Amino acid sequence: MSFEKVAIIGLGLQGGSIGLATQEFLPEVQTSGFDLDPATRARAADRGLVHQVCETAAEAVRDADLVIFCVPPGVMGEAALDVRDALRKDALISDVGSCKQSIAAALREALPDHYVIPAHPVAGTENSGPDAGFAHLFRNRWCIVTPPEHTDLVKLSQLVEFWEALGANVEIMDAQHHDLVLAVTSHLPHLIAYTIVGTASDLEDVTQSEVIKYSAGGFRDFTRIAASDPTMWRDVFLTNKEAVLTMLQRFTEDLTALQRAIRVGDGDALFEQFARTRAIRRSIIQEGQDDSRPDFGRGDHENGTKKI
Amino acid sequence: MSFEKVAIIGLGLQGGSIGLATQEFLPEVQTSGFDLDPATRARAADRGLVHQVCETAAEAVRDADLVIFCVPPGVMGEAALDVRDALRKDALISDVGSCKQSIAAALREALPDHYVIPAHPVAGTENSGPDAGFAHLFRNRWCIVTPPEHTDLVKLSQLVEFWEALGANVEIMDAQHHDLVLAVTSHLPHLIAYTIVGTASDLEDVTQSEVIKYSAGGFRDFTRIAASDPTMWRDVFLTNKEAVLTMLQRFTEDLTALQRAIRVGDGDALFEQFARTRAIRRSIIQEGQDDSRPDFGRGDHENGTKKI
Repeated sequence: MSFEKVAIIGLGLQGGSIGLATQEFLPEVQTSGFDLDPATRARAADRGLVHQVCETAAEAVRDADLVIFCVPPGVMGEAALDVRDALRKDALISDVGSCKQSIAAALREALPDHYVIPAHPVAGTENSGPDAGFAHLFRNRWCIVTPPEHTDLVKLSQLVEFWEALGANVEIMDAQHHDLVLAVTSHLPHLIAYTIVGTASDLEDVTQSEVIKYSAGGFRDFTRIAASDPTMWRDVFLTNKEAVLTMLQRFTEDLTALQRAIRVGDGDALFEQFARTRAIRRSIIQEGQDDSRPDFGRGDHENGTKKI
Repeated sequence: MSFEKVAIIGLGLQGGSIGLATQEFLPEVQTSGFDLDPATRARAADRGLVHQVCETAAEAVRDADLVIFCVPPGVMGEAALDVRDALRKDALISDVGSCKQSIAAALREALPDHYVIPAHPVAGTENSGPDAGFAHLFRNRWCIVTPPEHTDLVKLSQLVEFWEALGANVEIMDAQHHDLVLAVTSHLPHLIAYTIVGTASDLEDVTQSEVIKYSAGGFRDFTRIAASDPTMWRDVFLTNKEAVLTMLQRFTEDLTALQRAIRVGDGDALFEQFARTRAIRRSIIQEGQDDSRPDFGRGDHENGTKKI
């Protein structure tokens, strides 16, 4: 591994998982980390998310040759400014944010003299904070790297090698295209999930306890991603606004068409729409991006069986 | 158990699961079944979904004191007419459909001289057909029974006892209220999932293979319920039209409000909405209606780990 010391700024789900994965898969690499929240730092130290939890970000990045910002998209620039003077001159700067254009711009503005290669591991759970991370989060997940034009190929390949060591498959992509792709595969689903969970909570005719009780009819699937970190998701929608609004417009058109089919009783249109969506599910399972067991395997597991 | 012979019309996910569960938990009860599709009948016989797979529906219901229709909502009346002359006079008639008002009306019109008590087990997976059923489908799930006014309480308690024996918790509810509750906890989520999977398939700027590859960002959660049986879901939307359109209107209003918040950059409104949805997820898990493990426990299981 080309890196000797990796500094992780932000020790939540992503930062904590990178720290644990680095220690497990790259035991020769030193890891340090910082989080603005003292309670998170304390918990990170307890769990050993990195070798060294520092009291300042500047201390964490000292001597690091790879610095990864794992803070919400809206504060990337601020976090970068905070360490500017402590960075090694040749440190490679990266991040894990879900919107690449705006984050790349913020990091480059804050650190004009450093090499910045943004990245986005498409992996996560609904949990957040220092207890959420685990070493295998990135295994067989895609990590999208969005290098700027004229990127140093040596630095790029070092970053790719790092993510591959953590278990990810790496894809190189243009930042603008990344933001469009993720708007549909991640941002729009989260927005819709947050919306429907909100809608269900606000009804007068149906109580919240009924919504909870009968959630196994489909609703519960949406509550998982709607339990994700609100700060991060607020920032995602504010920083990938254009692409999200574009995708939302398409979704609304399609929903309106189905609404009309229901209203006029057009069973053929409904059937046609519902019949063509199975193939995508099959492909996702074939490509190892979801569990093949019915119901995501819920209740299949011994613990799950007891719960469910 | 008060019933000696249970006849199941329709041997897909629900019918097959009832057959298997009855054999496992009520071994003294005889089970017979019929399905319009000869291939389903053959497979049902191979899997032993019921003791006796019959070549006609009339033969299946002969001597049965409980007859459960497990066909799509749109053909309940037809399926009931088909067996009318072969039914025992005192047979109790029930079903498992997801819309109670229209199905109750169809069954009562087809069988005016019989006792009809509709029911709806809120349980399922994305799979359908004779291979999808399993004996534990109803365990710790709710089964909503919607008796008509002036129901014979003995018959009602027999049906409740039957579902409880299969592992379900039973709730008695007014049919109209059921249709409203399920419109939000089941029908609307399915409609939205079908829509977004369709939207994602139709984009020009993002390829289908990209949608599949990066689906772990949230999209894949929606593909599960969008893989459900298209015939059944077409019928659900046609038969619970009013309640679905009402809920859809509420959802669209809420989505429009969030769209506006994104457009004008109102981070506080977004944060507020995203922060209040976690509590519902927690309650669903506390009430045993979902798995407490992150990511639905996907990848936690040995088989899952290999796949994911």
